[in-house]
Amino acid sequence: MNTTELQKVLDGRFAEIRADVRDRLAKEDMTAEPGLSVEEYRALTLANLRKLADSGHPQRGFAGDVGGVVTAFAMLAFADLSLLVKAGVQWGLFGGAVQVLGTSAHHDAYLQQIMDGELLGCFAMTETGHGSDVQHLRTTATYDPATQEFVVDTPDPSARKDYIGNAARDGRMAVVFAQLITGGVSHGVHALLVPIRDDDGNAMPGVTISDCGHKAGLNGVDNGRLTFDHVRVPRQALLNRFADVAPDGTYTSAIENETRRFFTMLGTLVRGRISVAGGAGTATQKALTLAIRYGNIRRQFADPATGEESAVLDYLVHQRKLLPALATTYALHFAQDELVQAMHELQGAGAVPDEARQRELETKAAGIKAVGTWHATRTIQTCREACGGAGYLSENLLPQLKADTDVFTTFEGDNTVLLQLVAKTILSDYGKRVAQLDLAGKARFGAGLVAGFALERTGARALISRGALRDRAYQRYLFVEREEHQIATAAQRMRAALKPGADQFAVFNAAQDHLLEASRAHVDRIVFDAFARAVDACSDAQTKALLAKVLDLHALSVIEAEAGFFTGHAYLTAGRAKAVTHEVNALCGELRPHARTLVDGFAIPEGWLACPMLAGEHDATAAATNPVPTTEEPSDLSAVG
Amino acid sequence: MNTTELQKVLDGRFAEIRADVRDRLAKEDMTAEPGLSVEEYRALTLANLRKLADSGHPQRGFAGDVGGVVTAFAMLAFADLSLLVKAGVQWGLFGGAVQVLGTSAHHDAYLQQIMDGELLGCFAMTETGHGSDVQHLRTTATYDPATQEFVVDTPDPSARKDYIGNAARDGRMAVVFAQLITGGVSHGVHALLVPIRDDDGNAMPGVTISDCGHKAGLNGVDNGRLTFDHVRVPRQALLNRFADVAPDGTYTSAIENETRRFFTMLGTLVRGRISVAGGAGTATQKALTLAIRYGNIRRQFADPATGEESAVLDYLVHQRKLLPALATTYALHFAQDELVQAMHELQGAGAVPDEARQRELETKAAGIKAVGTWHATRTIQTCREACGGAGYLSENLLPQLKADTDVFTTFEGDNTVLLQLVAKTILSDYGKRVAQLDLAGKARFGAGLVAGFALERTGARALISRGALRDRAYQRYLFVEREEHQIATAAQRMRAALKPGADQFAVFNAAQDHLLEASRAHVDRIVFDAFARAVDACSDAQTKALLAKVLDLHALSVIEAEAGFFTGHAYLTAGRAKAVTHEVNALCGELRPHARTLVDGFAIPEGWLACPMLAGEHDATAAATNPVPTTEEPSDLSAVG
Repeated sequence: MNTTELQKVLDGRFAEIRADVRDRLAKEDMTAEPGLSVEEYRALTLANLRKLADSGHPQRGFAGDVGGVVTAFAMLAFADLSLLVKAGVQWGLFGGAVQVLGTSAHHDAYLQQIMDGELLGCFAMTETGHGSDVQHLRTTATYDPATQEFVVDTPDPSARKDYIGNAARDGRMAVVFAQLITGGVSHGVHALLVPIRDDDGNAMPGVTISDCGHKAGLNGVDNGRLTFDHVRVPRQALLNRFADVAPDGTYTSAIENETRRFFTMLGTLVRGRISVAGGAGTATQKALTLAIRYGNIRRQFADPATGEESAVLDYLVHQRKLLPALATTYALHFAQDELVQAMHELQGAGAVPDEARQRELETKAAGIKAVGTWHATRTIQTCREACGGAGYLSENLLPQLKADTDVFTTFEGDNTVLLQLVAKTILSDYGKRVAQLDLAGKARFGAGLVAGFALERTGARALISRGALRDRAYQRYLFVEREEHQIATAAQRMRAALKPGADQFAVFNAAQDHLLEASRAHVDRIVFDAFARAVDACSDAQTKALLAKVLDLHALSVIEAEAGFFTGHAYLTAGRAKAVTHEVNALCGELRPHARTLVDGFAIPEGWLACPMLAGEHDATAAATNPVPTTEEPSDLSAVG
Repeated sequence: MNTTELQKVLDGRFAEIRADVRDRLAKEDMTAEPGLSVEEYRALTLANLRKLADSGHPQRGFAGDVGGVVTAFAMLAFADLSLLVKAGVQWGLFGGAVQVLGTSAHHDAYLQQIMDGELLGCFAMTETGHGSDVQHLRTTATYDPATQEFVVDTPDPSARKDYIGNAARDGRMAVVFAQLITGGVSHGVHALLVPIRDDDGNAMPGVTISDCGHKAGLNGVDNGRLTFDHVRVPRQALLNRFADVAPDGTYTSAIENETRRFFTMLGTLVRGRISVAGGAGTATQKALTLAIRYGNIRRQFADPATGEESAVLDYLVHQRKLLPALATTYALHFAQDELVQAMHELQGAGAVPDEARQRELETKAAGIKAVGTWHATRTIQTCREACGGAGYLSENLLPQLKADTDVFTTFEGDNTVLLQLVAKTILSDYGKRVAQLDLAGKARFGAGLVAGFALERTGARALISRGALRDRAYQRYLFVEREEHQIATAAQRMRAALKPGADQFAVFNAAQDHLLEASRAHVDRIVFDAFARAVDACSDAQTKALLAKVLDLHALSVIEAEAGFFTGHAYLTAGRAKAVTHEVNALCGELRPHARTLVDGFAIPEGWLACPMLAGEHDATAAATNPVPTTEEPSDLSAVG
C-alpha cells in the first residue's frame, strides 16, 4: 500500500508548510550530536535558531498564519527539541506576548527584530514560589508619577523569576509579569518590557541573572533566573492592550474584574500550550517510527517449527507495547489538528475575537496538552524499552527524545492543574445544561439518573447496551456514557461545597481525583470524535479502511484500560471485557503488517531518523534467514531482546 | 514518632553492613556533579570504584557474606548509580563468574586482584544479535589439540559482544561466553577468560574494541563492544567448574543435557539480577524521599478559608501520586530483603547447593526484578513530575536517578522475558499440583472450577467473598484468587499447544499477554506476603500499627489497579470497587502526617540528599505563613506547581 494518501490525510490543512519543512529545513543540519557540553549545545541551538529565522516561518506566524507556524514548529521535534523550545520561547512566548499584549508602539519598535531573531527575549512569568498559581506571583511594578516610570522589584527570594528560557545566555529583553501598583493600589498581574542585558551581554543595572544549569534534557535552551532590584522602566514599557496607566498614574482597563482581566491576558497566550501539545505529538511519532522500524528487523528466539528467528514485532506482547500507542498517537494527531485549525480561525489573520469560542479553545487546549504530553512520556518510555539496550544508547536518538519531552507534562501548565481547569469548565457547562431544563425536563433528567442506577444494580444495562465491539456507534456510546457519568457524579459532589459553612477546600480536595477522571473521560471522548471525523473525511477507500481499523484499536484499547469502570458500572460483563481484550489482540495482529506503513505516513525526513540501530534495515532479510537450532526452551518464553 | 524502630525493621538482617555504608562510605565523596563529560565521569567512577575496594566490602562478598555485599551494593544507588553498576560489573558479574564458574586455579590466579580492583574485567555475554536469547549467541571457542588452545572468534557482525561494561576503557580481561566446539562438535555456551588489553591499555592482538559512547544515563560506566579474530587462549582459560576439555580435546561434563548445563551456569549468576532489583529499590526510595520532602515545603494556591497557601502534599492528587507508590516501595523492600536472605543461605559461606531451592530463588529473582524495576521507572518518573520544574533540574538529583535506572527494565534480563520465565515455572508447578491430585481430588478440583464460574455468572461471589477492606485475610484472599484464576486459565490455554500438530508458536504467542498477567498476579501475591510477614515480625507496637496501614495502602492500591479483573470476575461489585478507591484516598489522608517519617525510615545519608530544592526545609514554616489574597478561582483548581 502506498503511503501518499495516508500522508495526505495526516498532513491535513497545513500540508504546504509541512512540505516546506521537509524540503528546506530537513536539508539544513538542525540536529545535535549526543554528549555536547551545555555551552556547546546552547551555541549550536542559537545558530540553528538563526537558520529558522531565515526560513521565514516565524515571520509567517506574525503575519497571521498562526496555524501554519504552530504546525511547522511542532515538526522541529523531528529534528531537535531544544531548538523547538528555544523557538517557542523566542517567537511564541516572548514575541507572542509583545504582539498580543502590546500595542502598535511596541509592535513598531520590536516585532521586526524579534521575528528576525536579532532581538532575543524572555517570557518572565514563573517565579520560584509561584509556578501554577501565577495570579499570585510577587514581583511588583510600582508606578512613579514623578519620573513617569515603573519600578520593577523582586521583594523576596520566592519572587525570583525561575526556569526562564533565553535568560541564562542570550536574552536581551524580558516580558516581565508583575503585580501592577499605582497610587498605592494593586491592579493585579500585568506585563512589562524590561531590558535585562546591554549590547555586550552584561546584565543591566539592578538586574541579577543566574543560570539553572544542567537539566534532564533541553540543554540547548539557556534557562535562567532573574531578580530585579528597583529597576526603572518608562511608562511605555507596559504592554497596554488590556490596561494602561496615564502619566499621572491613573489606571484604566476595559475589563473591570481583575481576575477576568488576568485570564483574558493569559488566554491570548494559549498558542504556547497548543504548540507544546503539538511538539509532544511529533516527538511521539518519531519515537514510534524508530521503535517499530527496529521491531521489524530485530529478531530474537527461533520458532521451533521453522528454526527461524522471529522479528520481535511478530510477538504479541511487543505489538501490545507499540500498536495501541500508535493508534492513540493517530487519534491525538487528528485532535491536535482540529485544535490548531480552531486557533487559526480564532486568532489568525482577519479573525474576529469570540469570547465563548476562545474559552472553548482554551479548555480543549488544556485537556489535549495534558493527555497528549502524558501519552508522549509514557509512549517514548515504552519505545526505549522496546528497543532494549539499543534504545538506551544516545546514538539511537530515543534517550534524547525521552529526556527532552519529560518536562512537557509540567511546563506550559502542570498537567494536573490543567485537567482541573478542564473539570471546572465542563462542570459549570453541565450545571448550565441542568439549570436550563424546565420542570418536566428536570423530572426526566432525574428519572434518567435513577433508571441508570437501576440498570447498573441489576446488570441489565450490559444486555441492553450490547453492540458489536467494532461498531463505532457502540464505541462512542461507551465513551459518552463514561463521560456523562463521571461529570454528573462529580457535579453532585461539588454541590456539597455550595452549602453554607461548607469547608470548600475539604470538599474539593476530597473529590480531586474524581474531577480528574471526569476531565480524562471528557478529553478521551473529544479525541475519539476528532479521529472519527478524520476517518469519515478520508476519500481514499483503502486508506479509509486502514484508518478505521486504527480507530478501532484506539477506541478498544481505551475501553480496555477503563474496564474497571465499564464492568463496575455494568456496561460490560466479565465475558465482554475479555472479548475487548481479545479484540485488541486481534487488531494488533491485523495491523502488524501495516505497522511500517502507518509510521511512514508521518513522513519524517530520513535524515532525522538515521541511526545505527536502523542500519540493519538494508540487510534485514539476510539476518532473517539465520537458522538457529531449536531448543528445549519453549518459544512461549520468547520475547524482545 | 521516632524513626529508630522503623529503620531497624527496614534495615533487617544486614543492618550492620548498612550502618557501615552510612558511617564510612557516606563520608567519602562518591557522588558526581551533573554535566560531566563522558570521559570525566568515567574517570571519576573508576576513582570511586577504588575507594569501594578499600572499604573491604567486595572482599566480604567473595569471603561468603553474599547477602551483606548485595545489600551494601544496592545502597550505592543513594550516592551514584554509575558507581553501583560499575561495581556490579567488576565484582558481581566478572568476579562472580570467575568465582562460581571457575575452579581453584582461576581463583588462585585472579580473585585477589579482582577483589582489590587491580584487575578490571568484563562480562562478555550479550551480543549485538542476541540479547535475551543468549543460549544462541554466535561467538565460537574452538579447541585446537595441536597447541592445546581455544580459538575465540566472532564469525559475523551479529556475534559482536555489545553493551559490555568495563570494555570501552578500563577492562583488562573478559569472561567471554561462546559456543564451545571440540572435535567438530558443539557443546553449547561456555565461559572463557580472555585478555583484551595489555598493561598499557592497548587492545590485545586480534581483539577489536569499540565504544558504545554516550548513553541515556550511567555515563560513568564505560560500555563497549568486543570482536575477536581467531584469538588464541590456553586450554586453562576455560572456566571449568561445570565442564572441561582434556588436552586431547575430550569434552566432559557432570551435566549431560546441554540446555540444563547452560541454565545451571546462568543460575549461579542470579546474584546480578538480585542486585539490580536492590538498586532499583534504593533508587526509588531516594526519589520518593526527595519528592515527599519537597511536597512538605512546596506551597501552592491559597485555601480560601484561611488565605494561607497549602503544602502540595496536602492535596489529594499529590498524595495519590506519591503515597501508594511509597507503600509499594515498602512492600518491595521487604520482598527484596527475603530474596537476599534466601540467596545468602543458598550461596553464602558453608551453604549446601539445593537445585529445587535454587530454581525457586531464580524464579523469585526474575519476578521481583521485573516488577521492581518497572515500579522504579514509573515511580521515579512520577517523583520528577511531582516536583515540577525543580524536578527537571539536575541539581535536584531526580533527573540522574531517572536516566540511570531507566535501563534496569531491560538489562540483566529484559523484564518481559523474565516474566515469561516466571510464567513457565508457575505453570509447570501448577501442572504438577493438578497431576498429583488423586481421582477424588481431580473431581473436587474440577467441581471447584465449575462452582467458581457459576459464582462469577450469578455475581453471588461478591456477596460470599465480602470482607472488611482493611482485613488482611480478605486482602490476601483477593490476591490469591487473582493469582489462581490467572494461572488456571493460562494453563488451560497452554494445553492446546500440546495437541499433536499444534502450531506451538501461534498458541503461545496468542496467550503471551495472559501469561504475563499470571506472572504479575503471582509476584504481587509474593510481595504482599513478604510485607505481611514483616509487619507480623515487628515488635514495636507503634511502628507495627504504622506499617500495617502502609500495607493496607499497598494492598488496596493494587486491588484498585486491578479493579477491572475483580469487578469483571464478580469479586467486587461496582459499589465495593468505589469503596476501595474511597479507602485508598482515606489511607492517603491518614498516612500523610507520617509521610516524612516513612521516608526517614530509609535513613539515606543527608549528604547524598542535599540539593537546592530542599534548602527551603529550614524556613519552611516561614514560607508557610505568607497570607495571599483569596481569589475567584476556587481552590478545587489548586494543585502542584
